[in-house]
Amino acid sequence: MQLTHFTDLGLRVLIYLTYPDRDEPVTISEIAERFAVSRNHLVKVVHFLALQNWIVTTRGKGGGMALAQPVDTYRMGQIIRQLEGHTELIDCSKPACSLKGNCQLKAILDSAHRQFYEALDAYTLQDAVASPTREAVVQLHQLYHLQVQPSP
Amino acid sequence: MQLTHFTDLGLRVLIYLTYPDRDEPVTISEIAERFAVSRNHLVKVVHFLALQNWIVTTRGKGGGMALAQPVDTYRMGQIIRQLEGHTELIDCSKPACSLKGNCQLKAILDSAHRQFYEALDAYTLQDAVASPTREAVVQLHQLYHLQVQPSP
Repeated sequence: MQLTHFTDLGLRVLIYLTYPDRDEPVTISEIAERFAVSRNHLVKVVHFLALQNWIVTTRGKGGGMALAQPVDTYRMGQIIRQLEGHTELIDCSKPACSLKGNCQLKAILDSAHRQFYEALDAYTLQDAVASPTREAVVQLHQLYHLQVQPSP
Repeated sequence: MQLTHFTDLGLRVLIYLTYPDRDEPVTISEIAERFAVSRNHLVKVVHFLALQNWIVTTRGKGGGMALAQPVDTYRMGQIIRQLEGHTELIDCSKPACSLKGNCQLKAILDSAHRQFYEALDAYTLQDAVASPTREAVVQLHQLYHLQVQPSP
């Protein structure tokens, strides 16, 4: 059982954006470089995050993205549920199961699936960047600044 | 988030084997036909189930498989955890995450993952074939008998 690569990237973007001490917005290229991930995949993820009103984006030179809300208002269960796209744990249609419509296993799986998201909802994005994650995020941003603004 | 096809097949096999009124063992071909799934995939799944001592298999003509233990002793969390192969919800190595080793998100995900399996462990295979699943399984077995033992 794994979360999708889409969810993985979405979480990395949100975590990166928690760093509060940025004057300028964060660009997709910056995140792609920092996490060594595909820029094309990130474009789709960032578009999705903006549609959820989780981030605000600005276009053009000097544009980029930032978190739209306070970091402690992002519930991890809600975020991951949306990123995962409400998939079922087992697709009873592929291959079509002979028990479909008469299966108590599905009810058991659905119940555990709900409890999984409820467990995640006990945490916010703020908890996800508690120490030592916060310091690691700060360091990633500092690395970026060293690269784009070399000392004279 | 989805369970693997391997887990899906493993669960279908175990559910099919809960039918108590069989004189002869169940064959892989029979399950492949009843669930319209690949025989090759089933061979691997059945081998795995036997390694876990969840089923007993007999070779040769008249051979096949049967549940090894009483149906109410199979904990659904334990079964699904084994079938899933103890995977992590996110593979922090693919692509290698810059936060690896300093990530509180991983602890949050691990905690919810454990709670998912604990929720499943509240149920046994017996619960998974409660009515109407039991009747659907009986019907699948009866269909098979009609096919192999046509009335004169």
